[in-house]
Amino acid sequence: MIYLLTIAFDGRPFCGFQKQINGVSVQETLSQAAGRIFGDSCRITGCSRTDSGVHARDFKAALSVDDGAVSLSADRVPAAINTYLPDSVEVLSAAVMPDDFHVRYDVSEKEYQYLILNTPVRDPFLVGRAWHYPRTLSVGVMDEAAGYLVGTHDFASFMASGSDIRDTVRTVFACNVSRDGPVVRVTVSGNGFLYHMVRIIVGTLVGVSEGRFRPSDMSALLEAKDRNAAGRTAPACGLYLTRVSYSEKGGRSNGGKQRATDEKTS
Amino acid sequence: MIYLLTIAFDGRPFCGFQKQINGVSVQETLSQAAGRIFGDSCRITGCSRTDSGVHARDFKAALSVDDGAVSLSADRVPAAINTYLPDSVEVLSAAVMPDDFHVRYDVSEKEYQYLILNTPVRDPFLVGRAWHYPRTLSVGVMDEAAGYLVGTHDFASFMASGSDIRDTVRTVFACNVSRDGPVVRVTVSGNGFLYHMVRIIVGTLVGVSEGRFRPSDMSALLEAKDRNAAGRTAPACGLYLTRVSYSEKGGRSNGGKQRATDEKTS
Repeated sequence: MIYLLTIAFDGRPFCGFQKQINGVSVQETLSQAAGRIFGDSCRITGCSRTDSGVHARDFKAALSVDDGAVSLSADRVPAAINTYLPDSVEVLSAAVMPDDFHVRYDVSEKEYQYLILNTPVRDPFLVGRAWHYPRTLSVGVMDEAAGYLVGTHDFASFMASGSDIRDTVRTVFACNVSRDGPVVRVTVSGNGFLYHMVRIIVGTLVGVSEGRFRPSDMSALLEAKDRNAAGRTAPACGLYLTRVSYSEKGGRSNGGKQRATDEKTS
Repeated sequence: MIYLLTIAFDGRPFCGFQKQINGVSVQETLSQAAGRIFGDSCRITGCSRTDSGVHARDFKAALSVDDGAVSLSADRVPAAINTYLPDSVEVLSAAVMPDDFHVRYDVSEKEYQYLILNTPVRDPFLVGRAWHYPRTLSVGVMDEAAGYLVGTHDFASFMASGSDIRDTVRTVFACNVSRDGPVVRVTVSGNGFLYHMVRIIVGTLVGVSEGRFRPSDMSALLEAKDRNAAGRTAPACGLYLTRVSYSEKGGRSNGGKQRATDEKTS
């Protein structure tokens, strides 16, 4: 049986979602907690990898349970697993999925939000949860530049090295920048994201505010297909995975052609 | 010279504001940082004590500096002190005050907010920053009950033992309960607060939601002047000092009669 788990986690104590030799991962933490309920043969698979320090408010993970294991109705799964989870990660809900469901390949849309604390002084409540950028950001030109990234483009300029992805074409459905008091929020949704793509987008948009780029430079920057053309990589601490959607039909009805193809994201 | 410092702090790593033998206090942390700028003879005095784990978004502290010490314009003080502060506490602003200003006695109004995370599951981002109360709260009756507390009353029923305060009459200017999505917020303002007063108010209002009290019981509860008549004490982690105001004239022009008289508050 496959349960789709919706999870929130504070990324600070973790080396990312994916299990790694060095450091505690969300995947390992979840697997151990689920193992207490469903036995050691249950498996946790995530909708994407996340970097160390990146947060999630709506991460999706598949929990595969052997037919012989204990059977729990989906509504009882969150509380059961949460009993064994630390404060930094929580299962928010669970649903039973068809056997051919794949938590990563079947994603139709992901949304990330990036928070920038844009005040001269720090905020003790946002330490590790937002990028503190003290100079006043020009949200208007950042938002204008963000508009150029919407659509289907080759985002090679916005991919960090260290990924073996070859097809760097992705579709960004929306990208905008807004201010909510002291916090500047960058929201990006798309069908998939390359390694560090959102963080490089944010660093580049901040570069627009700094006058390093004009909003209209974004087109040439995409065309360059060169990481060196874009701006710096914003720190991990401000990044939140905020929404992961699956097509209504679910399953793998699209034959994989339109699948989100993240290998290492954000 | 007296600087009035506006401070925010995450209460989790601290034993409270006031210097204590056991544990690290905000006062001690601030004193050490200010000492790096103004020398060891400078003194930090707070607008109130706070309990271990209680947060502040607008705490006021007076920094008294000897005439012989380094002279800094007020606008340069926050960055200077913040250089030596940990992430958990930050000086937001500073202002020069008259010599007869007293940071505690001259307070005309304080506002506290108390956050209750009212969802079946926890939120990793609110651990230590809100009281997690899983059963659905009836905000309407809580708010109705809160209204009975507004005005000048003897709040002895809402004071924990362990205080040597004799005059337990305080004026509550406003007290209301509202819901903002998953978070229920209790906001209380007044001319002063007794030891654990806000936390006992919150625990009692939750008791109203649970059916232990009717809103109209609040009057009898005040009249009882007995701590045992009120509800339980809500945990410290949900409490924030959110506003501290001084009369426009400042100084001690009121002769101390209308002074906020907190000794140990919240």
